[in-house]
Amino acid sequence: MSQPLCLENLPRTVELERDGDGRPRLAYIDQRRLPGELAFERTGDWRVVVDAVKSLAVRGAPALGIAGAAAVALWAGNVGAARATSRGCAGEGPCFLEELGPVADEVAAARPTAVNLAWGVRRAVARARRAVASGAPSALVADELFDEVKHMEAEDEAVNRAIGAHGAELLAPGSRILTHCNAGSLGTAFYGTALGIVYAAAAQGKVERVYADETRPVGQGARLTAWELSRANVPCTLICDDMAASLMAAGRVDAVLVGADRIAANGDAANKIGTYGVAVLARHHGIPFYMAAPTSTIDPTLPDGSGIPIEERDPAEVLPQPLPGVEVWNPAFDVTPAALITRIVTERGVFEPGKLVY
Amino acid sequence: MSQPLCLENLPRTVELERDGDGRPRLAYIDQRRLPGELAFERTGDWRVVVDAVKSLAVRGAPALGIAGAAAVALWAGNVGAARATSRGCAGEGPCFLEELGPVADEVAAARPTAVNLAWGVRRAVARARRAVASGAPSALVADELFDEVKHMEAEDEAVNRAIGAHGAELLAPGSRILTHCNAGSLGTAFYGTALGIVYAAAAQGKVERVYADETRPVGQGARLTAWELSRANVPCTLICDDMAASLMAAGRVDAVLVGADRIAANGDAANKIGTYGVAVLARHHGIPFYMAAPTSTIDPTLPDGSGIPIEERDPAEVLPQPLPGVEVWNPAFDVTPAALITRIVTERGVFEPGKLVY
Repeated sequence: MSQPLCLENLPRTVELERDGDGRPRLAYIDQRRLPGELAFERTGDWRVVVDAVKSLAVRGAPALGIAGAAAVALWAGNVGAARATSRGCAGEGPCFLEELGPVADEVAAARPTAVNLAWGVRRAVARARRAVASGAPSALVADELFDEVKHMEAEDEAVNRAIGAHGAELLAPGSRILTHCNAGSLGTAFYGTALGIVYAAAAQGKVERVYADETRPVGQGARLTAWELSRANVPCTLICDDMAASLMAAGRVDAVLVGADRIAANGDAANKIGTYGVAVLARHHGIPFYMAAPTSTIDPTLPDGSGIPIEERDPAEVLPQPLPGVEVWNPAFDVTPAALITRIVTERGVFEPGKLVY
Repeated sequence: MSQPLCLENLPRTVELERDGDGRPRLAYIDQRRLPGELAFERTGDWRVVVDAVKSLAVRGAPALGIAGAAAVALWAGNVGAARATSRGCAGEGPCFLEELGPVADEVAAARPTAVNLAWGVRRAVARARRAVASGAPSALVADELFDEVKHMEAEDEAVNRAIGAHGAELLAPGSRILTHCNAGSLGTAFYGTALGIVYAAAAQGKVERVYADETRPVGQGARLTAWELSRANVPCTLICDDMAASLMAAGRVDAVLVGADRIAANGDAANKIGTYGVAVLARHHGIPFYMAAPTSTIDPTLPDGSGIPIEERDPAEVLPQPLPGVEVWNPAFDVTPAALITRIVTERGVFEPGKLVY
C-alpha cells in the first residue's frame, strides 16, 4: 500500500449515549447519505430507530443487532416506566415487561432476514426480565438495558477483531480480495467482519487491493465499502456486479470475502443479494470463498437455508420510474449453500461450513 | 400473455433517408434518452454519427454495422464530392477514394469490440470502390452508397427474422427467458437478434415471461430491453444483475438468450459485460445458454476469443463522483468461451459454437 492503514478515520456506526438530561439516545450514521455526506443522527425515540432500520439508514447484520437492543433500551429509558405508571401499574415489574413485549416484537420484525436483529432484541428483553425478576425498579431496568447495549457495542468490536485475526491467516501476502455489499465497519459497531479481515490482513501488509462489487440496487459496495476503504487507506477498485466474473477469469482475484445475515445449522448462509452468484463464480474459477460473521449470525433453529426468510423490497429501488407491463423482482438477500462456502470465519475461529462451533 | 404481441409499437432504430433537398441524413433514436423519451435525431453530418456511436446514442452490434456504413454514405453524399473538387482533383475516382479512406478508418475505430461496425464500413467502402472502378462520378457513388445502406437495413431485418425463426424452435411453450443487455430491435435496424427470437417465439405463444438483467453500468436492460418489451406487449420482469443467480436457483429460468458483438472462429464470443458471468451461472444451473447474432458478427480472422479487443469506458459511468483512492474498472464487454455456449443462432440456422457456418 502506498499509505498506511488508518482505522482512526472510520467513525462509530451505532453508539448509545446519554443526552444532557441523562436520557438515552442512539447516535447513528445515516448511511443513505453516504458517500456524499457523513451525517450523524441522534434520537431518543425507539420508533425512529425502527424506521432507520427499515429505510437502511442503519444496516448490516451486527449493527442491526445493536440497533435492535438499543431501540428496546430507548423505549425502556424514555417511555416504558412513564407509560406503565400512566396505566396504573406503578411502572414496575411484570407490567413493565407486558408493555415491553409488543415493542420488542415490532423492533424485531423491522427486517426479516438478518437474525442478529431479533437476537439483539431477545438479548435486551432477557436482560430486562432478569432485572425485573431481581426486583429492580423500572428506572434501574432501563439503566441495565443501557449497560447491556454498551456492552454489546464493545463486544461487537472485540468479536470483529477476533474474526479479523482468524481470517487474516487465510490470506497470503499480496492478496487481491473481492467483496460484495458492505460487511465493514459500517455494518457493525466498528471494524467490520469481512472487511475486519481485510483490515487485519492489511495491518500485516498482506492486502494488495480490494475489489468492491457495487451491489445493486442499494449500492452498499459503491456507496459504503468504497467510501470506508478510501477512509482507511486500503486500495480499492469499484466494479459493477456484472464484472466480477471477468475479473476472476482475468486471474485478478485471490479470495472472496463476504459477510452473512443468517447462517443455518448446516452452514447454508443468507447474505446480500448477489452473494450466491459470486459464490458460484468463485467455485467455477477455483477461488476460495470465505464468509465472516459473529456467532450471533448463526441460527441453530434452522437445519438448512431453505427456511431463511428472504426480504423482498420496494420495486422502486430497482426501477424508480415504472414502465407499463414491466414488473420488478427485488429480493434483498440470497442463500449460498454450504457446499459453495470454503470456510466460515467467526470470532471462535475458521470452520468448514457444516462444522460450525457456536 | 394477457395482450397480443405488438411489434407495430417498435420504432425503426437507424434509418437513412433524404431531406427536402435530397441530401442523405440518418434518422436514429437517441437511446441515451430512453426510457424517459423516445427522441429521434436526424443528421447529415458523418461526424455526428461517429459521436452518436461513441456516446452510445446508437448501440448494438447490428445497428452499429448500419450506422458505420451510413456514416460513410453521409460523408460521400454531403462532403466527399465537394471536398475532392476543392482539392483540385475534380471530385472523381481515385481522389474520392483517397479522401474516403481516413473517414472510413475514423468511423470504424469509433468503438473497438463489435466487429459489425468495421464490417459495415468495409462493406460501404467496397461498394464505393466498385462504383469508382466502373467509372461512376462521385454523385453516383454517393447514390450507390445510399442504396447500399438501405439494402443493409432491409437485410438486417430479414436476417433478424430468420434468426428469430430458427431460435424459436429451441424454445418450449411456457418459456421463461433471461436476457442480458439489449439485443433487441433497438440494437438492430428492426426486430432484434436475441429478442428477435423472443418475438418469434411469442408469436407462437411460447413465451411466458422475459427476465431482463438491468446491465450495469449503462443499463441497457433496464432502460432499453424493458422499454422495448413493454412496447411490444411481452411480459417482462426487470432484475438487477446480481439477482440472476437466485432467479436460476429458484427454477424460474428455462433458457438464457443474449446477443453477441464479435464471435471468433472457434465460437468464443464477446458480448456486453456480464454475459460471461450469466453463462457460468447458466452452466451451474443446467440452463441452456443461447447466443443470437448475424453472421456479420463472426470474425473469422480470430482463431479464438483471446484476440478480441475489449473496450474500457469512462469510470464516471460506474462512479459519477470520484472517491479519493478508489479506482474503477469499467470494461464494456467480456468474452464467453465456446464451451459455455449451448448454441449460436444465426440467420443460417442453429449451430454448435465450434461448428459455425458463415
